Amino acid sequence: MATDRNRILVESIKRLLRRGATSHLSKIVNKTHAADLSLVFHSLSLAQQRKLFGLISNVEQKGILFSELDEDTFQDLTEDMRVEDIVRILESMPTDDVADIIGRLPEEKSQAILDKMKRAESQEVEDLLRYGDDTAGGIMVPDFIALREDVTAREAIESLQTEHSDVEMAFYLYVVDEYGKLVGVSSLRQLVVVSPATPLREFMITDVFSVQTDMDQEEVAKLVARYDILAVPVVDGSNRLMGIVTVDDVIDILRKEATEDILKMAGAGEEFVETKSIFKSTRIRLPWLFASCLGGIFAFFIIGEFESSLSKIAYLAAFIPVIMGMGGNIGTQSSTIVVRGLATGRINVRDIWTVVFKELSIGLILGFVYGLLIGSVAQVRYSMEALALSVALAVICSMSVAALVGSLVPMGFARINIDPAVATGPLVTTAIDIISVFFYFMIATTLLGL
Amino acid sequence: MATDRNRILVESIKRLLRRGATSHLSKIVNKTHAADLSLVFHSLSLAQQRKLFGLISNVEQKGILFSELDEDTFQDLTEDMRVEDIVRILESMPTDDVADIIGRLPEEKSQAILDKMKRAESQEVEDLLRYGDDTAGGIMVPDFIALREDVTAREAIESLQTEHSDVEMAFYLYVVDEYGKLVGVSSLRQLVVVSPATPLREFMITDVFSVQTDMDQEEVAKLVARYDILAVPVVDGSNRLMGIVTVDDVIDILRKEATEDILKMAGAGEEFVETKSIFKSTRIRLPWLFASCLGGIFAFFIIGEFESSLSKIAYLAAFIPVIMGMGGNIGTQSSTIVVRGLATGRINVRDIWTVVFKELSIGLILGFVYGLLIGSVAQVRYSMEALALSVALAVICSMSVAALVGSLVPMGFARINIDPAVATGPLVTTAIDIISVFFYFMIATTLLGL
Repeated sequence: MATDRNRILVESIKRLLRRGATSHLSKIVNKTHAADLSLVFHSLSLAQQRKLFGLISNVEQKGILFSELDEDTFQDLTEDMRVEDIVRILESMPTDDVADIIGRLPEEKSQAILDKMKRAESQEVEDLLRYGDDTAGGIMVPDFIALREDVTAREAIESLQTEHSDVEMAFYLYVVDEYGKLVGVSSLRQLVVVSPATPLREFMITDVFSVQTDMDQEEVAKLVARYDILAVPVVDGSNRLMGIVTVDDVIDILRKEATEDILKMAGAGEEFVETKSIFKSTRIRLPWLFASCLGGIFAFFIIGEFESSLSKIAYLAAFIPVIMGMGGNIGTQSSTIVVRGLATGRINVRDIWTVVFKELSIGLILGFVYGLLIGSVAQVRYSMEALALSVALAVICSMSVAALVGSLVPMGFARINIDPAVATGPLVTTAIDIISVFFYFMIATTLLGL
Repeated sequence: MATDRNRILVESIKRLLRRGATSHLSKIVNKTHAADLSLVFHSLSLAQQRKLFGLISNVEQKGILFSELDEDTFQDLTEDMRVEDIVRILESMPTDDVADIIGRLPEEKSQAILDKMKRAESQEVEDLLRYGDDTAGGIMVPDFIALREDVTAREAIESLQTEHSDVEMAFYLYVVDEYGKLVGVSSLRQLVVVSPATPLREFMITDVFSVQTDMDQEEVAKLVARYDILAVPVVDGSNRLMGIVTVDDVIDILRKEATEDILKMAGAGEEFVETKSIFKSTRIRLPWLFASCLGGIFAFFIIGEFESSLSKIAYLAAFIPVIMGMGGNIGTQSSTIVVRGLATGRINVRDIWTVVFKELSIGLILGFVYGLLIGSVAQVRYSMEALALSVALAVICSMSVAALVGSLVPMGFARINIDPAVATGPLVTTAIDIISVFFYFMIATTLLGL
C-alpha cells in the first residue's frame, strides 16, 4: 500500500498538472526523490508523464527514473526524445541498469544509442549484454575496487580518494592476483582499524564467497539473502573477478521473483500486466484460461454420460458446486504451500513423499470433517440417506485427491526442474474439477442404484 | 529450490546421522555456514535435530541457527536445554534477534532467561520488547555509531577501533546533538576521503532519512528497498536516535510479507505451516475452507429452487462446472493482480475506478471469446440454440462479474485499510461461485421457457 505521504504527492502533482502550474510543479519535482516520482508516474497518462519528465532538471534523477520505469512506459516516454538526450541520461546511470534498458530496446535504437555513448562506457555495456539477462553476469556492476595483496591499508584508502572515487557501493575491497583472479576480500571497516602500513595480504579474508557469471539471478539473490552480505563478487570460469552484485539489486530480484510466482500461480502471466493496455492484458491472460475452458468442456461431456441418472434425480446437480468448490480450495491451499515452500527453501524437493503424505493426511481429515457437515445438510434438505452418503463420500474423495494432486504436481515438477509455479495454478484446478465431478457421479449412481 | 550443493549436504548429513558417524559429522557441521545448516534442519526429525545441534561447538554458529529456526522447532529443540546454555548462545546474537526469540517464549521461560543474562544486555532486550513486534522499534538493532558533530574524521576512525569495535553493520556514522537527537549522517567511505582534521559537521549530510519507532515494519522495508539504502535510522517522537534497521533484516521482512500475502490469498493461514504437525496444519486450514463450504451449501439451495427445470432438461447441469470454473479462474487472475499490485506499489489505491473499469473491460472481452467458444461446443453437442445461447450468455456474465468482484473487493478493502490479501481468496471465489450459478439458471430458465 502506498504511504499517506505518497498519496498526497500523487494528488498534488495531478492537480498541478491539470492547472498547468509549471513553475510550482518543477519546484516539487526537483525536491522529490526519483523513487517517489516513479510511483507518481504509474498514475499518470502518457501526456502527463512527458510533461512531468520534461520538468526534471537533474540528469541523475532522470536516470533513476529511467531504471524504475517498466518497459512499455520507457518506450512511450522516449519515443520523441533525441538520442543525445537519452545518452546523456544513461551515462549518469550504473552500467547494469543501462545494459538492462539497452537490452530491451529494438536493435536499431539500441545501436544508435551505443554509437553515441562514450567509448569506454558503451564497451562496458556491451560486455554486460553478452551475459544472459537473468544471470549473475547480467545483473552485476563492473564498478568495484580490486587491489593487489601487497597494497597497504594507507594506499588502499588513498585509492578511494583517487582512482576509485566513482565506485558507488564501496563497502568491500577485493584483492586480486596478477592475473585478476580473486584471492581475498576486506571490508572498508577493517581497512581503517588496522595500522596504515599493514599490507592487505595480512588482514584480508581468503575464504571469499563468490558466484559464477552464469549462475541464475534467483540463486544469487537467495545466497546474498541467506548469508546476510551486502555484495557478492562475480567471477568467470577461471576465477577472474568480473563484477559485483549488490544488495539493492538483490532486493529487486527477490521482489520480482515473488511477483512472478504469484502471477504464474494465478495464471496471469509472468510479468506484472496491470500497467499495460487492456488489449495487451487480455492477450496475456487469454491462454491461461484456455486450460480451464478445456477442462470445463471435458467435465460437461462426463456429466452428459450420466444424463439418464440426472433426469431421474434432478437434484443430484445441486451438489456439483459444493463438491468442486471444496476440492478446488483445498487443492489451492496445498499447491500454494508447496510452491512457496520450495521457493523459500522451507520445503526440500527431496522430501517429496513426506510432503505428499502429509498433505494427503490433511486432505483426508478435512474431507471427513466437511463431508460429514455437507452430507448432514443434504440429509436435512432431501431426507435421502443414499444421496447424503454419496455427497459425503464425494466430498471426502474430492478433498483428499485435491490435496494429493495439489502437492504431488508441484513437487514432481520441481523434481524434474520445471518451474512448479507456472505448472501449478490452472493445471491443478482443472484436474481437480474433472476428478471431483467424475467421482461424485460414479459414487452417486452406484449408491442410488441409478 | 535448494541448490545442488545443499541437496548433497542434506543427504550426507542424514546418512552420517543414520550411521552414527559422530566425529565425521562434527567436522562437517563445524565447517558449514549456519544458514546452510538451518536448511538441513528443516529436513530432520526432532531427535536428529537435537543430535546435530549438540555437535556444533561454535556458540556464534548456534546463535545464527537459533535466529533462523521457526518458533516450533526452537521450542522443541530448547525444551531440555539448561537456561545457562541458552543464555550463552543468546548473548552471542544481535539484540533484535534475541528480542524476537524471547518475545515468543512463554512468560515463565523468558523471565528465567532474562534473569540470567548480563544486566546491560537484558536491559537492551527489554527495551526492544516494549515496541510492537511488527514495528520499526521491534526490528531495529541498538548497535549503531553515534558521534557529536565536532568530532573529527580522525577521532571518528579511532572510535571504530575502540568504543565502537563491536558494532556489526558499520557503514554509516550518525551524528547526534547533546540530547541524542539525530542531526546528520556520514558514510564510512566519506570519512576516509576527507582530511583527518575535518569535523563531522563539515561533511555530514543533514538531510537524513529516518523512520519513527512505531512505523509498520513493511513500510520500513519498502522505504529501504525504494531508496536503495543499507540501513535506516529509527527515531522516537522527539527525533532521538534509538536504533537502526539494516538491509539484511529488510530482505527477511520483504520475503516474509510476500509469503504471508501468498498464503492468505490461498486461504492457508498467515504463517508458513508446512513445518508444523499435521494436526496444527489442519486446524489452521480448516476455518478458511468453511467459507467455501457455506458458499457451496448456499449454491445447492439456489439450484434446488430450479429443480423442476432440471428434471425437464437434465443436461442443464452439465454446464455448471465450466461456468463456475471460467468465473473462478478469471476472478483469481483479477484479485491476484490487484493484491500484488497494491503490495508492490504498482497500483495506487486511489485509482480504484480506473483499475476496476479496466478489469471489467478485460472480463467482458474474455467473456465474449470464451462464451462464443463454449456456446458453440454446447450447440454441437446438444443442437439446441436456446441452450447454447444460455450457456454463452452465462459465461459472459460470470466472467465479467468475476473480474469486477475480483478487482473491486481488494481495492475496496485496501481503501478502508483492511489487508486486501486476507479478504480476497476465499471470499471472492465463493461469491463468484454463487453469482455464476444463479445467473446461469436465471438465464437458462428464461430463454428455454422453463
